[in-house]
Amino acid sequence: MTNSIKEPYLLTPGPLTTSHATKAAMLRDWGSWDDDFNQVTADVRTQLLAMAEAASGEYACVPMQGSGTFAVESALACATDPNDKVLVLMNGAYGKRAAQLLHMMGRRYVTLDKGDYLPPQPNEVAVLLEQYPEITSVFLVHCETSSGILNPLEAIAEVVHTHGKTLIVDAMSSFGGVPISLAKTPIDVLVSSANKCIEGVPGFGFVIIRKALLEAGKGRAHSLSLDLYAQWEYMERTGQWRFTPPTHTVVAFQTALAQHREEGGVRGRCARYTRNRDALVKGMRAIGFGTLLEDGWLSPIITTFLSPNDPAFEFNAFYAALKSRGFLIYPGKLTEVESFRIGCIGQLDAAVMETLLVAMQDALSEMGVFLSSHSRSA
Amino acid sequence: MTNSIKEPYLLTPGPLTTSHATKAAMLRDWGSWDDDFNQVTADVRTQLLAMAEAASGEYACVPMQGSGTFAVESALACATDPNDKVLVLMNGAYGKRAAQLLHMMGRRYVTLDKGDYLPPQPNEVAVLLEQYPEITSVFLVHCETSSGILNPLEAIAEVVHTHGKTLIVDAMSSFGGVPISLAKTPIDVLVSSANKCIEGVPGFGFVIIRKALLEAGKGRAHSLSLDLYAQWEYMERTGQWRFTPPTHTVVAFQTALAQHREEGGVRGRCARYTRNRDALVKGMRAIGFGTLLEDGWLSPIITTFLSPNDPAFEFNAFYAALKSRGFLIYPGKLTEVESFRIGCIGQLDAAVMETLLVAMQDALSEMGVFLSSHSRSA
Repeated sequence: MTNSIKEPYLLTPGPLTTSHATKAAMLRDWGSWDDDFNQVTADVRTQLLAMAEAASGEYACVPMQGSGTFAVESALACATDPNDKVLVLMNGAYGKRAAQLLHMMGRRYVTLDKGDYLPPQPNEVAVLLEQYPEITSVFLVHCETSSGILNPLEAIAEVVHTHGKTLIVDAMSSFGGVPISLAKTPIDVLVSSANKCIEGVPGFGFVIIRKALLEAGKGRAHSLSLDLYAQWEYMERTGQWRFTPPTHTVVAFQTALAQHREEGGVRGRCARYTRNRDALVKGMRAIGFGTLLEDGWLSPIITTFLSPNDPAFEFNAFYAALKSRGFLIYPGKLTEVESFRIGCIGQLDAAVMETLLVAMQDALSEMGVFLSSHSRSA
Repeated sequence: MTNSIKEPYLLTPGPLTTSHATKAAMLRDWGSWDDDFNQVTADVRTQLLAMAEAASGEYACVPMQGSGTFAVESALACATDPNDKVLVLMNGAYGKRAAQLLHMMGRRYVTLDKGDYLPPQPNEVAVLLEQYPEITSVFLVHCETSSGILNPLEAIAEVVHTHGKTLIVDAMSSFGGVPISLAKTPIDVLVSSANKCIEGVPGFGFVIIRKALLEAGKGRAHSLSLDLYAQWEYMERTGQWRFTPPTHTVVAFQTALAQHREEGGVRGRCARYTRNRDALVKGMRAIGFGTLLEDGWLSPIITTFLSPNDPAFEFNAFYAALKSRGFLIYPGKLTEVESFRIGCIGQLDAAVMETLLVAMQDALSEMGVFLSSHSRSA
């Protein structure tokens, strides 16, 4: 896979490297009021429901302007009310952010905080749901990009469903790249964004949500702009976004969706991302880097590597050395150990990963970092 | 001016027709964490302060993801608190929306509602400020695109300043196309967006605000995503946007800013938009259309025309007939009379307007609408 312009590959969990066709779709202006654009919006919403295997009678897809956090905020405001109590499963920055959002909105919540990277376990969730019967909803981050862990969505969804609670899933960085079926897995609300595994450009997110929850959310929102119910009601009535949409981004996303289909949908994309990750992890271990997580928890989205103990290793210098070789990596987000992250999503394939591994060895030599087997284990 | 692809001209108040160069700037992906992108953000912020003639020691420019309303919401949340009382000057949809925002945030306010299109007068504002000494801030829409009126910003700013109150201006559709000098006119907060007179693509807005007001806004926000203080504090500290920015839109905006400079800045652009409006209004009157407003109140941004009384005239058919001829116009937004609007901003010049006038006569003939002099007057 080659870039259209000489520019670095983004080995980040979105914004990511998109195809030239996706970007070229932005070479046209659209009237945000015009029916041609409304048809793009309608098509995107329909395709997203299909990708989630969500029955269109039961679920709606509501796009929301802004970053992924804007969409999560709008979803939480709509799907919970001050009488609810939310169990927030946390193992990284995005679980913490959900708790922060609930706090700010005056919603009651309890947390299960597993620290930097340990997965919340279904039995722990069951215990908490029995201990706090007033809990009405559970919030889970599917792929927590802070560590790169893929949390056990299906097993937790089953527990939440058995207890008759609502499940809200932040599938920001996994949706479209890891199979999620709302027909098979009981999920009530799923949030993701344009610039992740569907490989669009950033500018909006979207919420796939049970219509019954949307309707219950009428008048609940704390924000006019982020009122998910109002966005849905207006869109259903007029075909338009309630406030000016990022037209070019939406059209680019429709083009990205076509490429997603051509690649074999979620399964095809997941296969490529998995090959990327496998090539990356194998090569990095061969160089002497250790992964934070054991293999069973590694997502095909992003992987956290532990920084070597060598005093010659310094993240900013390493970042600059890789950037000069055409790759942008991502800093770590762990509180206790030094680390960095490498994304596997976007227009990348295993051949790009092999080039990255060569660049990495080259960068380490330049920095005078020499890894030995002792730095392989966490 | 020609479009890059055969597509209609957008005669709308944003999203509008942008240049090919602006859209072509989106043909590259950027790391939202990377210094190259941070430099684009910093440059854009600096240029916007300069365009507003705002002293960088006193004012900051803070961009905000989403549509213009997202930026207005974040600005009102930051610049007012529940002890404040805001006088909202209303003569159209955007003044009403500000009142709706304040209501939702639990802020106290009074309104001066001038109906569909009458301008708020400086002496009326003075009377209200004396009648309600507890008023702390005044909100004014500069160009109210509901009617196309350019409200008397400078005279009202003077009154507000004399009374020692804070002035918050929604300059969404005017900034960059109509001269506004914060060095000469006492404005405390000014809000605009990427896809108006600077001719960028939609995806973010921005707030130019006194630093003292930003600092006072710490902890006030009702929304995590729309917390203007937090966005500013994070951006100052890290150079990055707090949550994922619409990278392509920001880079396109930087390119649009360069074209704005090349055209002679605000004055050059205002001159072109004024020529567009003059050609449009003259031609429309010659066809037999009347304008809603008298000449003195017509903005160079968008003009409202009264729908003819001829029963053969129907807006949707007129819209479709003009669309098939390469022009998208805008529906009216008046509560009492039938009308439609035509924008003068974006990559349009007087020659485009002349082509539009020919298309319009053609469309009217096709519809069997024959205008006579009686439909000229409002």
